[in-house]
Amino acid sequence: MALIVQKYGGSSVADAASIKRVAKRIAESKRAGHDVVVVVSAMGDTTDELIDLANEVSPMPPSREMDILLTAGERISMSLLAMAIANLGIQAQSFTGQQAGVITDSAHGKARIIDVTPSRIRNAIAQDAVAIVAGFQGVTQYTNDVTTLGRGGSDTTAVALAAALMADVCEIYTDVDGVFTADPRIVPTARKIDRISYDEMLEMAASGAKVLVLRCVEYARRYDVPIHVRSSFSGRQGTLVTSAATAVDPTAPRSATGSGQHTDQQSDEQGEGAVEQPIISGVAHDRSEAKITVVGVPDVPGKAARIFEVVAGAGVNIDMIVQNVSAASTGLTDISFTLPATDGQVGIAALTAVQGDIGFESLQYDDTIGKLSLVGAGMRSHPGVSAKLFAALSTAGINIEMISTSEIRISVVTRADHLDDAVRAVHTAFELDSTEDEAVVYGGTGR
Amino acid sequence: MALIVQKYGGSSVADAASIKRVAKRIAESKRAGHDVVVVVSAMGDTTDELIDLANEVSPMPPSREMDILLTAGERISMSLLAMAIANLGIQAQSFTGQQAGVITDSAHGKARIIDVTPSRIRNAIAQDAVAIVAGFQGVTQYTNDVTTLGRGGSDTTAVALAAALMADVCEIYTDVDGVFTADPRIVPTARKIDRISYDEMLEMAASGAKVLVLRCVEYARRYDVPIHVRSSFSGRQGTLVTSAATAVDPTAPRSATGSGQHTDQQSDEQGEGAVEQPIISGVAHDRSEAKITVVGVPDVPGKAARIFEVVAGAGVNIDMIVQNVSAASTGLTDISFTLPATDGQVGIAALTAVQGDIGFESLQYDDTIGKLSLVGAGMRSHPGVSAKLFAALSTAGINIEMISTSEIRISVVTRADHLDDAVRAVHTAFELDSTEDEAVVYGGTGR
Repeated sequence: MALIVQKYGGSSVADAASIKRVAKRIAESKRAGHDVVVVVSAMGDTTDELIDLANEVSPMPPSREMDILLTAGERISMSLLAMAIANLGIQAQSFTGQQAGVITDSAHGKARIIDVTPSRIRNAIAQDAVAIVAGFQGVTQYTNDVTTLGRGGSDTTAVALAAALMADVCEIYTDVDGVFTADPRIVPTARKIDRISYDEMLEMAASGAKVLVLRCVEYARRYDVPIHVRSSFSGRQGTLVTSAATAVDPTAPRSATGSGQHTDQQSDEQGEGAVEQPIISGVAHDRSEAKITVVGVPDVPGKAARIFEVVAGAGVNIDMIVQNVSAASTGLTDISFTLPATDGQVGIAALTAVQGDIGFESLQYDDTIGKLSLVGAGMRSHPGVSAKLFAALSTAGINIEMISTSEIRISVVTRADHLDDAVRAVHTAFELDSTEDEAVVYGGTGR
Repeated sequence: MALIVQKYGGSSVADAASIKRVAKRIAESKRAGHDVVVVVSAMGDTTDELIDLANEVSPMPPSREMDILLTAGERISMSLLAMAIANLGIQAQSFTGQQAGVITDSAHGKARIIDVTPSRIRNAIAQDAVAIVAGFQGVTQYTNDVTTLGRGGSDTTAVALAAALMADVCEIYTDVDGVFTADPRIVPTARKIDRISYDEMLEMAASGAKVLVLRCVEYARRYDVPIHVRSSFSGRQGTLVTSAATAVDPTAPRSATGSGQHTDQQSDEQGEGAVEQPIISGVAHDRSEAKITVVGVPDVPGKAARIFEVVAGAGVNIDMIVQNVSAASTGLTDISFTLPATDGQVGIAALTAVQGDIGFESLQYDDTIGKLSLVGAGMRSHPGVSAKLFAALSTAGINIEMISTSEIRISVVTRADHLDDAVRAVHTAFELDSTEDEAVVYGGTGR
């Protein structure tokens, strides 16, 4: 008997029929003897419909009102889910973010959780009831104003509650079977990853894997909450995200770990030399970035720092940076960096304003780039990984424009229209392709 | 400069365009220098749609969850309205029932207000902001569970807030121009009543006039909150409900009271003898009742009391009662009473269970009755009113089945299919018909 926090996204509760199906699943967990706390998102397109309504009445809705509006969505789904569970003969009570004790700062639209005091949830558990909690929302500490947590907020609610309740596991139900070695829409032979560490999952999420948001994984790592990413449409085991130092080799047959139980045991069925192979989690990709090149920067100490100061001052997060070697004849250099494409115009405007001050020649903006990231704890001690990556891309005829590396990740920037080919080439080169005819279920990005 | 509480029903905020229109109206009140607190219902059919969803997931939704579900409706309308007002350059903040301090008992679905502590609303007013409050909802005192107030709940929220804030007036905006001398769909010559007392309005509401619910008028009378019922589609003066001892004669030309100001002044322009006429507010009608006749009750003391004890014990409210004169030869009598038709089966079942005990012969059930009520403070001192009423009905060939009277009301039961004719006949007999070609606006019953 365990305490399980389950999170269901909007596509899992899109209509009455889906809600009844999810209720059945929750009832099964409860009947199996577990204590169950459920975090739920708004039904299907509810949030988008509410945003449309807001835009109809005001071009710039105040963020406090926007938060009150949007939280209506979870209020509807949570009460309907509680009703559906009660209808199966199992006690259920729904709770708003406030009632569940999700306390946040007052940054409406992107509030951060500052405390979780789930005494009412503990009471519900003690009374043998399933507690249904509205995801994505909280309440400010002193003024009791309703806030929303921003993108991926419901996942974060689930992990935060699991941490506060010291739950055994936080199950994130989505419309895919788990975390994959690459996006199966691009790489049909992508495999589900059985187990991955927080660090690797963080790099995957930061590099564009959409199944879990960065913030939720960060929260889980900080409080050591095991996350189980799995499909709400099947009973299959999904991907377990834990503090385990090394990931299970994704090429190992999944049946090797036995009856659905996760263990740290490595499979040795992959042939000679396999144990010396670097262990790679997967290949992530990201099309949401753009590149700014500052052309003709005087090659004088402090100029580069000044550029990044200005961009940071405009609230823009920079990802990768490349500085070309200065041409000795001119004393000028070019500096390129990537940033979210949505911040592109802000970045250009901020730099243009200081052009005279810094003395660069011009700015180039390019939003037709793609980023590929190879993630895996194994590459820490295997210097051959980047060489193999570059060779694979070169063989596929793909040009590399920028490179950055961390302990467990290598990212490269390519032309956007070469990105899919690049992902497939690298996935194959690192032997991540599925060798069996596995029934991979993938229904789009998770909500 | 006054403090005004305005309440807008669901039909007034049915879509984005309506919300913007209402926002403009609120902005005008604010720009005129008044402090404005707004109570709003859920948009159009939202509540019905949510009820449908609940019924899809559960045949018997728990009432606590139903309340959480339904309150999502006001959360949406209140935040959209606040956005629309802010977009007009006027500060606005929305508040849930809880945030507005509407404390109720825990009778989910039909909670009673036990206290209103609107400190946040006072703060908003002090900051020169328009406060938008979710109608129909409150929160329990100790457990902070969300409750709904039941039918007419938003009107009651508005009056309760007006009382707590000591507002100068509570304006109830609806889709009709005010309270009429009769339902204009039945009596096209019905006139809008300019002013009516709480007592008369209570009798009108209790007798089937749907524009204000009984409970809201009771609350207003208890705390002496002036109610102004008016149309959200026109700028016209509506009906003022106050503690004034006598109603303004509805046959007086409305222009007689000057530039839209209400006074207690009576018009004397209605010709000879008019001042001696009883002053009648209007003719209400009700089709929602049924009649049970208990046939062959032993004419022994205590039997009638026992019948009504049993019915009351089943939670059924009895309205009118008639006991026939006992036939001396048999020692048996018949007792008829009316009750809400929705409680008909409950009443029949309760009585059937004690048939042997009480010893009556049989039960008759009739749900094809109609009730007409003539309401007016004037009839207190005018014994001729009932004679005139009966004569009018008799002339129209309408049979009277039951009669009951109060100080300011006479009600009669007729066949349901004679009710419209009865209302028209009585309306004419008491000279309530409009004599001018007034632009009466009537768009259906208020929500």
